[in-house]
Parts: sequence; C-alpha cells; structure tokens
Amino acid sequence: MIDVRNPADGFTSLRARIHALGDPGPNGCGADSAPLTVGEWALLIDDIVAHPESNTEPLWNVADPEDDDREFDAIFIGGGAAGRFGSAALRARGGRQLTIDAWPFLGGSCPHQACVPHHLFSEVARELDLARHMQERLWYPPFDEKRASILDVIELFKAGRGYPHAIMNWQSKEQLDMEYILNARATLIDARTVEVAGQRFTARNLVLCTGAHTVFPEIAGIGLKGVYDYSSLIEELDYEPNRCVIIGGSKVAMEYGSFFHATGCKTTILTRSPLMRTASLHHVDEGLRDYVIAMMADRGIEIVQDAEPVEVLGNGKVTGIRYRTADGHEHQIDTDFVFVGTGERPNLDMYAPLGLATDERGFVIADTHMRTNVPGVYAAGDLVGPPMEMFKARKCGVGAARNIMGEDYEFDYTQYPDFLHTTYEVTWCGLSEAEARNRYRNVIKIQMPPDDADPENFALPAAEGSMIYAFTRPILSGWLKLVIDADTRKILGAHHVGYGAKDAFQYIDYLIRRPEGFTMDEMAELNELFLNPEHFIQLCRLRAGQAMPVNL
Amino acid sequence: MIDVRNPADGFTSLRARIHALGDPGPNGCGADSAPLTVGEWALLIDDIVAHPESNTEPLWNVADPEDDDREFDAIFIGGGAAGRFGSAALRARGGRQLTIDAWPFLGGSCPHQACVPHHLFSEVARELDLARHMQERLWYPPFDEKRASILDVIELFKAGRGYPHAIMNWQSKEQLDMEYILNARATLIDARTVEVAGQRFTARNLVLCTGAHTVFPEIAGIGLKGVYDYSSLIEELDYEPNRCVIIGGSKVAMEYGSFFHATGCKTTILTRSPLMRTASLHHVDEGLRDYVIAMMADRGIEIVQDAEPVEVLGNGKVTGIRYRTADGHEHQIDTDFVFVGTGERPNLDMYAPLGLATDERGFVIADTHMRTNVPGVYAAGDLVGPPMEMFKARKCGVGAARNIMGEDYEFDYTQYPDFLHTTYEVTWCGLSEAEARNRYRNVIKIQMPPDDADPENFALPAAEGSMIYAFTRPILSGWLKLVIDADTRKILGAHHVGYGAKDAFQYIDYLIRRPEGFTMDEMAELNELFLNPEHFIQLCRLRAGQAMPVNL
Repeated sequence: MIDVRNPADGFTSLRARIHALGDPGPNGCGADSAPLTVGEWALLIDDIVAHPESNTEPLWNVADPEDDDREFDAIFIGGGAAGRFGSAALRARGGRQLTIDAWPFLGGSCPHQACVPHHLFSEVARELDLARHMQERLWYPPFDEKRASILDVIELFKAGRGYPHAIMNWQSKEQLDMEYILNARATLIDARTVEVAGQRFTARNLVLCTGAHTVFPEIAGIGLKGVYDYSSLIEELDYEPNRCVIIGGSKVAMEYGSFFHATGCKTTILTRSPLMRTASLHHVDEGLRDYVIAMMADRGIEIVQDAEPVEVLGNGKVTGIRYRTADGHEHQIDTDFVFVGTGERPNLDMYAPLGLATDERGFVIADTHMRTNVPGVYAAGDLVGPPMEMFKARKCGVGAARNIMGEDYEFDYTQYPDFLHTTYEVTWCGLSEAEARNRYRNVIKIQMPPDDADPENFALPAAEGSMIYAFTRPILSGWLKLVIDADTRKILGAHHVGYGAKDAFQYIDYLIRRPEGFTMDEMAELNELFLNPEHFIQLCRLRAGQAMPVNL
Repeated sequence: MIDVRNPADGFTSLRARIHALGDPGPNGCGADSAPLTVGEWALLIDDIVAHPESNTEPLWNVADPEDDDREFDAIFIGGGAAGRFGSAALRARGGRQLTIDAWPFLGGSCPHQACVPHHLFSEVARELDLARHMQERLWYPPFDEKRASILDVIELFKAGRGYPHAIMNWQSKEQLDMEYILNARATLIDARTVEVAGQRFTARNLVLCTGAHTVFPEIAGIGLKGVYDYSSLIEELDYEPNRCVIIGGSKVAMEYGSFFHATGCKTTILTRSPLMRTASLHHVDEGLRDYVIAMMADRGIEIVQDAEPVEVLGNGKVTGIRYRTADGHEHQIDTDFVFVGTGERPNLDMYAPLGLATDERGFVIADTHMRTNVPGVYAAGDLVGPPMEMFKARKCGVGAARNIMGEDYEFDYTQYPDFLHTTYEVTWCGLSEAEARNRYRNVIKIQMPPDDADPENFALPAAEGSMIYAFTRPILSGWLKLVIDADTRKILGAHHVGYGAKDAFQYIDYLIRRPEGFTMDEMAELNELFLNPEHFIQLCRLRAGQAMPVNL
C-alpha cells in the first residue's frame, strides 16, 4: 500500500517517487514529511490512471489504530459526489468515516468522465457556435469545418483532469480531515463489514454510493467499435468521427449531440419520445422547449422522433445504423460514430449479500432519510435513481451522514431547479406556464421576446455572453419567461435560455419555494446588475406598480 | 410633428414613410392604423439618428385633449433609465405622465452610448482574450494581432442599436401605456411648466432625469482630435487606434481599457489613485482586487499609479501624452488615442430657473424620497450622483413616481451589489474580508483558490465560461471568496471574478441583507446547478456541519 499520510516514508519515499514523475509546481517542494500538495497529487493520480497495471497498490489514508481506535460511524462505498460530501458531513459532525473508491481519486465519475467534461464540451460547443456564426465578421476568420476535433478536446480534458482529482484528494484530507482508501475495490462481507486491500473494516453503518452506468440498447452490432457512451467516449475514442448518430433523447443526448455537431461532425439524434418531453424532465415549459429545439435545428442538428434503432451496422467497426420510424419503415444512416444517450442503471453487483430492495427499474429504494430496507445500510446518489444530478447525490450523501450522526434529517429531491446545455445554457425552476394555468385561475407571464414580436429583430435578451448574438442576429440571443400568479403576485416559475443566468436560478428557486413565496413586487425591489441575463428584476419592476398586472 | 399614435395619418403616412426606408421585417406589415412595430420603430429611429438635420420634427405620443384632459401628475424630463422606469411606475399606479427626451428614443445614453456598448465591448474583450490565449490550440487559428478592430466593433454596435431603442419606444407605448414626446428639447419655464415643440405643458410635479457627462481634465491639448470619452468614442471615432492611453482609473477606464487592449491596441492606464481603491467603489475585497489587477497585468495592460496628466500632445491630432509621476518626473508616451475615464458631472444647464441645491461636486441634492429643495421637483438617476448604475437610476425614478402618487417610499442606494468588467466579470456584495474582520471577532472565509494553493495548477473555479481556461491555464479561470461570521454563521460578503456568477449576486445580495441574514447552513441547503460558477453552495455544505466552521 502507498501511505499518503507519510509521504517521506518507504524504501523510496512517496515524495521522491512523485518528483521523479515530473515537476509538481512551486508548492511541491515543502518539507519531506509535509502533506502532498495538489501538484504532487496530480502527478501521482495521472501516473496511476495512465499505468493501472503497474499501480495496483491502494492509496492509504487511514489513521493507525494506535492513534485512533474509534469505531467507524460509517463506511462510504464509493467516493463520488454522494460518498465524498457524505463523508465530509459525517466527519464535520465529529463522526469517524472511511471512504473507499476503486479509482485513485475522490469525486467519482463526474470529474473523470461525466459532468466536468460535459461542461468543457458545452463551453467548446458555445465557442464553436459563435466562431462559426461570426466567421468573416469582426476579427473572426473563415470557419474551417475540418479544424475542430472531438478527439483534441477529449485529449485536453484528459491531460487536465488530474488537477480536479488532485484538488479533491488534497481538500478531503487536508481541509476536511477525511480518512480514505483509494485505488482499491471493496468487497462487501455483511451489512457492517467491508474488506479492502486484504483488511476488514467494520462500521456502525454502510453508505452505498457506487453510482450508475449507461444501459446500451440490446440491438445487433451495439458492441462494435465506434459505439460509445459518455464514459467510453473519454477513455476509448481513438479516431476523429466524421458523422454522428445518437441513440436516445436524454439530456446527455442533447448535450453531447450539440457538442459533436458544433465541432463539424454532422449529428442526428434518434429518439423515441420528443426531446425534453420525457418523464425524467419535469416542469419543462413548452415555450422554452420550442426555442431550444428550434435553435438546435437552426444549427443543423437532425432530430428524428419516434425512432427505434434496429441494428448498428459494421464489420469490426461501425459503418452505419438502421432504425425504424413510427410508420414501420426502416431507414439507414451511414456513420462512423454512434453515441448512446439513453438511460442509466445502478451499479449494484457487489451488494448481492445484502438483499437490497429495488424498484422496477432496478434502482435502490431509499426513504427520505436515505435508509434502504437493510438496517444500518443507506444508499445515496445515482444508485437511488433520477435525477442524476450533483445536488441530489451530494445532499443524499449528506442526508445519510446527518441521520447516522443522530439527526432526523429528510431530503426530498422531487422538486428542484434543473438545467441542460445545448450550445446554450437552458435553466428552469418552478412551474411551466401550462402547469401554472392548470393550478391558478389568473396567470400572467413576463417573456422576452414576447409572443407577438419578430424574434429576428427583437434584440433581447442581451447580456453577458449573448451581446454578440444580439447585435448580429437577435433570435440567437436567448429566450426567457417568468410565470406569475396575478392574484397573489407570487412568482410560480422561471425559465431561461441563453448565458449567465444559470447560477441565479439556484437562488430564484430557493426564493420562490419559501413557504411565503416570492412576489413580483419583492423581485422588483432588488438591485439589478445590469445587463442581468434574465432581466427578471427590471421586467417585474415595470409591472409591479399595477394593481392587477398583465403580461409583459 | 410626427404623430406616432396614428401611423396611417398625414399627407405621406408615417407608415409609408418608414417603409420607404427599408424592410421592417415580417411583423411590419399590419393594418395601416396598427401601432408601429419594433421593426418599424427601428427604421424610423435609425433614420433620425443618421440624419438629424432633416429630422427635426418631434415624435408625438400624447393623447388628444379631447380624449384625455387630465392634468399630468408628473413630467419626466429625460427618458433614460430613471425617466422611463419612473414614468412606467407612475402610469402603472394610474397616474398620468409625460416623458420628454431630446433623443428620438427612450432609454437614454445607456443603450445609445454607455452601458449597452460597454457590455458588447466587454464580451468582445473576453472572446478576444480567449482567442489569443488559445491560439494554435484546439481549433483556434494563430491570433492575428492586427485583425481585431475597435472601429469595426463600434460600427457593429451602431448598426444594431436601433433595435434596443425601438423595443423601448414600442414597449413604453404598447405595453406600458406611457405618453411621450421624443426628438425634442424641453425648456423649463417654472417648477410646474415645461415648453416643448412650441407647446406648454403643466404638471403637478417635475422629475428631473437628464443624466451626466464626462468631465475632461483641464490640460493643454485635451480638445485635440483623438481624445474621446465613452460617448464621443461611439459617435466620432473614425480611425483605427494603434496605441491607447487612458486618463483616469474609474470602472469605465478599466472596462474600456480592457477592451482596447484585447483588440491588440496596447493600452496604458494613467491613474491618480490605485485602481479599485477609489472612494466611488465600496466594499472592494483586497484579494479580489489583487486578482483583477494581476490578470490585467498578465494581459499586458500597463497601469501607472500616482500619474498626473500634464498635456496631450499633437498637431490637430493626438500624437502623444505627457504625464508626471509622484517623484515629480515627467514622462511621455507616443499615442494616437487618448480615452478619458475620469468622473462625471450632472447635466444641469436647463434647470437654472429652479435654483436647485447641489453638493460640492455639483450633483443635485435629493432626499431618500427623491425630493429636491424645490417643492414638487424631484431628481433621479445620475443627476443625484454616484453610483452611476442602472439599478439606482431606475429605482430613483420609480421612487419619485411612488411618492408623487401618494406613497411614502424611501430608496437608500448607499448599499448595493456592484460589478465591473475587465476581460472578466467582477462582482461583489456585502463586506470585504477586511471590513468583516474589523466588525466581527470571528470571521472565516471560503476561498478558491485557497491562499496556500499554487493558482497555476489549482483548476478551480471552473464553470460556465471558465472551463477552457481551467483546462489550459488554471490561474486564468477566476477567483472567489465568501466571508462568514463564524459566530452567527451568517454570510457577510461574497466576491467573485470569472464568468456566469454576476446574475446570482443580485439574489445573494438580497438574501444576505435580509434582517435575518442568510447563514452558511441555509446556503448549504440549496440545490446547486453544477458546475455553478461561484461554488458557494457546495463549499458552504462542506463546512456547514461543523459546530465551529473554519476556513476552506
């Protein structure tokens, strides 16, 4: 094992070994016995990820029994969003935790293969969209459709992912005082006992945080080289795709599809349900959806609804895909790249000894305390089903920790603000206009552009990130809507497509969900930071004076 | 006069005249008597702005006395942010208002010459910064330092500013039911009477909203061609500058300087006080300031403190500038472009008959009800002094309207969230860390990167708009700090440099200013939208469990 608590120890000290790998940066030259720096962690993790076969020793950050012989309050299996935040919360409350992960880093799939690269890809998509749109205007050169490379962007990500990993290992140890064993698979012995790296650990509780994986559709050819999901895309893609077909209509399908297409790789999305009308996305406003889909189509992305993939064609490598449309006809697209953006299923294999209760899709059933059917065993994160989002994973983990530490803490994740990317940031919270009209008798909206405007010349919204669009082709600059109950004047829902508003929705969601709600009059009193991307504050102000406000 | 209430009237109808100017877009072909569309307004405004000499008739949107003979509750002189929002608020409360502006559009200088172009310029600066930083990586071509043109960006703005103008004229008339006379100078007769376009109007009150203008330093050569402020830059620049010297260290100096420099026009800022340490900016955190200044310097902007401009050199046209440093030495820079970013002073000339009381800098003294020393006369916006920000102008105007309509409404704009741009969005609210430590005994902070990290490899913050930086040179990706009173656990201040967080600060500011405040524990309970640019929610969560939280 590699004892990361004592970097100066060993025949060749850990620190000497790391420094032989490269330059850890200016903060990497502290005293021999000082904790590993972020730069040193990055070198170590990158080396293990690049050469797993010669790096099978676990990374060991557990107190010696001589120094600390307290029982563990919980062992967290999996150190991703749920496991890491849960561990931090338990530790912060004075408990003792042990976190185990098969990867040599904490943070899980998000920074390694999932949400972090997705955000890089979405930013790249946005920049490519702007560069293509603006070509030969201002300083923008002609856009070379062959220049952007999916592979290059993935390589950029992989070259850099060691640092976020390193930050999490460093922060968890130095700032959050967690104990963990990484680069080691746990084996479950029973509901209180885990074996890892040849040692057994017992704890008062277990928290299961092992996440989920893509379910590939069971069609012929799905195993061919050239078929990827978000995970294998990062680890295995080794050629530059020319043409992309996406199976599935999830957020992932829309996000990765927008990225592939923006790089110049013509993309078709084959989806059973209409995009953004799936059960997994709640409160989607039809006006927002219309704008998002129209803008994807405006970029040339092909979206085929009611499409059923039949077979991936190829001979060792993908050459095409056959699919069936609602009318029963079969169609074929020649393509060298198939991306699967369908649903996910939980990683449960190791839990067989527990007899966990699962739902009809296979997700672990956990109550609002994150308790499973097995006493002392909690589940958190993607394991318990959608939404497969960071806030849910983290707060599930924290919820489990708080209950383990004696609080009575419930976490209801059935209502939340939501988002996705295309080349835009798409964000919403609260009720859609249609939902509001179903529940309230007197609903008004504030919308930009208004329904009766010509969006090609209605130069709003304009704000951080949409100014160049607003001044070159206004319809590209975004769309927003605020849904209000005119009787109580409370804001019921907020919806935005554009840039720069996503962060605000965390707070808008909080404000409108307070028991007392948040009225348009209160919104109107805020001090806006012009040009605020969602324009809600000033648009409310323009209507707030009215006894009975009407649409704007 | 041009009667915009009746576009089908006149020898050549207004509508026919507009359609002769160009294509107003698909919504511009309604019934002859239908109100002007946004597209039609844009054509009309652009024509008047381009040919003021042949367009001297006022744009008339006042009800016929036969249709409405009510007294005006207020006349708003100036239809910018203060006048337009004030008018809308007064009208919404059932009052009758008349708004007069010398320009042919409502909205004032902001969309014509000031904050809107500044936002376009700042977005351009950010995109140029990214293009230069990323050159020859990914799809980015070599960056051609000669390709970006200040003049081109200004031309893009001017070609498009008609639409925002048009939206405001259209919205104010069709959605907000305001009455106005544009393209006409008001003459003040007395505190209740205004003459415009040969007619006299009386009102119960006047609201003065005529804004401010740059004060040029009184040095030799300041009148040479080649010296500009934010206003003349838009209207008069007719060559491509090669080298820029900025006089002054205001927000405007930093924002425009960052833009000029990003285009490849080497920029020097001559400032008396250190940047961001002037009295006009409150609650600036030193850590935030250090990062902002370091990043300007990283881009190559030259900042000279304690610099006193002595003379602008030239012969008909600027060729250089002489300035004196604190040691008494004089220096010279050869330059073809001088930009004045010093303070502003109010536009008061027309108010001589009133005998308005002003402060030592010349700004109108108004109380928290927006009342001046003259009964029935209110003042709003830049006229009453800093902060020269949109929220203040708009809410001053609304405040005047609410008091005129019988409410007892006070507006205190001494505390507010603030922002500026460099190539970054820089946003803050509440107390700086130093201020907090002065007032509270037990202050902690949550900061990224932490003080002891190597920012060149600490790949956070990473989020919307900073992902590419985070994966290529982390130090460029931003900086954030949350200041917390560890005893009450209340958040005292929030500070951010990067992208995508500005909009959120409107709500964070509101939450932390509530009488009950906003604790880190409440923050930790929010549902974050990963990768949320300011990372505050999850960083609070990592500490929220602790009985006595410490720095993160």
